[in-house]
Amino acid sequence: MVVGTMAYDAISTPFGKVDKILGGAATYIGLSASRFNLNCGIVSVVGEDFENQHLNLLKNHGIDISGVEIVSGGATFFWSGKYHNDMNTRTTLDTQLNVLENFKPKIPQHFKSPDFVMLGNLSPNVQLQALEQLNSKPKLTILDTMNFWMDHFRSGLDQVIEKVDVISINDEEARQLTGEYSLVRAAAQIHKMGPEYVVIKKGEHGAFLFHNHEIFCAPALPLDEVIDPTGAGDSFAGGFIGYLTQTGDISFNNMKLALIYGSAMASFTVEKFGTENMLNYSPNMMADRLKAFKELTTFEIEIE
Amino acid sequence: MVVGTMAYDAISTPFGKVDKILGGAATYIGLSASRFNLNCGIVSVVGEDFENQHLNLLKNHGIDISGVEIVSGGATFFWSGKYHNDMNTRTTLDTQLNVLENFKPKIPQHFKSPDFVMLGNLSPNVQLQALEQLNSKPKLTILDTMNFWMDHFRSGLDQVIEKVDVISINDEEARQLTGEYSLVRAAAQIHKMGPEYVVIKKGEHGAFLFHNHEIFCAPALPLDEVIDPTGAGDSFAGGFIGYLTQTGDISFNNMKLALIYGSAMASFTVEKFGTENMLNYSPNMMADRLKAFKELTTFEIEIE
Repeated sequence: MVVGTMAYDAISTPFGKVDKILGGAATYIGLSASRFNLNCGIVSVVGEDFENQHLNLLKNHGIDISGVEIVSGGATFFWSGKYHNDMNTRTTLDTQLNVLENFKPKIPQHFKSPDFVMLGNLSPNVQLQALEQLNSKPKLTILDTMNFWMDHFRSGLDQVIEKVDVISINDEEARQLTGEYSLVRAAAQIHKMGPEYVVIKKGEHGAFLFHNHEIFCAPALPLDEVIDPTGAGDSFAGGFIGYLTQTGDISFNNMKLALIYGSAMASFTVEKFGTENMLNYSPNMMADRLKAFKELTTFEIEIE
Repeated sequence: MVVGTMAYDAISTPFGKVDKILGGAATYIGLSASRFNLNCGIVSVVGEDFENQHLNLLKNHGIDISGVEIVSGGATFFWSGKYHNDMNTRTTLDTQLNVLENFKPKIPQHFKSPDFVMLGNLSPNVQLQALEQLNSKPKLTILDTMNFWMDHFRSGLDQVIEKVDVISINDEEARQLTGEYSLVRAAAQIHKMGPEYVVIKKGEHGAFLFHNHEIFCAPALPLDEVIDPTGAGDSFAGGFIGYLTQTGDISFNNMKLALIYGSAMASFTVEKFGTENMLNYSPNMMADRLKAFKELTTFEIEIE
């Protein structure tokens, strides 16, 4: 089960501009996770303007959208941003919460005992309300969040953090959350707040997975060209939880592989605008990326 | 053979402050490389103020300092810098070139046919003058340089780049040198300029090694605390060339290991001020770091 936003995005990067394309955390997470062998359902909200073709796109990927509320007379969440030349920094030009403003997640009866739950980046209150409706504790709950909630909704956020098994945030957010500059120390602090596993995303520099004293590092695949970084973190999260759900194995060793699958998914997404490249996904493309990760990181060293 | 600066540094970081400690690229490269089984000689210049204890320190590490010119009445190159809270950015507070200003490298007769040459970061003219004095082409020549030389001495720098086998620069410098944001494309451009191997250092995010279409990525070891990043790049370079010299094997596969040894050396250096931690080096410490690198990066994936 994925709880998260569905949106229309307007994006400008040094490579081009799009006015109104399908976006939102739940969209990217769902499209990414649905490439694995699993049953995926989204809990979200859209406005009356949300196009049928986009609902159908999700359905055609096997995603259950019975948890997507359509607010009549409402408008879908809209985000507009501009990426700078280095593609690592972006400016938000416009945020129109619209139907998201009063969103109360309603979890369909048949979603209420999910094995794996992904809380995409949105208000900690919504994330809490979603967890409260579950009939049983999931095998694994993963939380994605961002600096905005740390700045303005810290106590609610702390409550969510306490309830999840895995948190996925970027390096700056990990530092902000803990006041620790060292990511090793930041992860140790976050462990104490609740999550047994801490994923720290570093964009083009890859991602770390921390679990007590174990650390794993997945580089990002070096790409010829990054066209649009939007959705990279969500595609990563979708690949991460998708692989864990398919295998049903939440050991640290298997989470390492999930990190690689997530990174592969993110590397697809950023090569075209929006969700475009995710729709080109094929198992062969995945196999090629996994081989590239293997070549990128494998070395044989004799330790005396 | 190492050609590079020897210096006194004054360094301020969020963890403390030192007024005048031993520094310089050749110092760090030499101390790092001398941990391997090889003969190492430094070509550099210092002033009359350079302390005997520091010359002896190098000698005691088995480093041949007969190529270190001592200018009577001159003062040693002095650098002063301040690291900011994130430890990734620094401000140069003072640079006194002193004896470095008119330095003409004089390579001792018994250094003139070196197998491995490391050109530490200094003026491209000095680097060229050093190469011109050699009697035979080395097995491998490695160049380290920085943005200052790209800004002000580009044509001289281009001449050095053409003559070396490996270049070692950071990600911003690779972008500046080529005008390409993508590191994959930047490395491809640099290959065309001469070097068969391109090492791109990313500080706390590790390093890439590019060789035609092959890419290897070594993460940096996540550390509890980075006390002083000064000399990290030079310790890295010293470990890299040290391992290659010891093994005599300059294949891509062996360069991957050299990258790991270099990263391990850098991870020592930054844990204390200046060269202090390099003096604590032991083979056991190296073995522990190599194990940590292995654990950090190893995953077993089945690709269909």
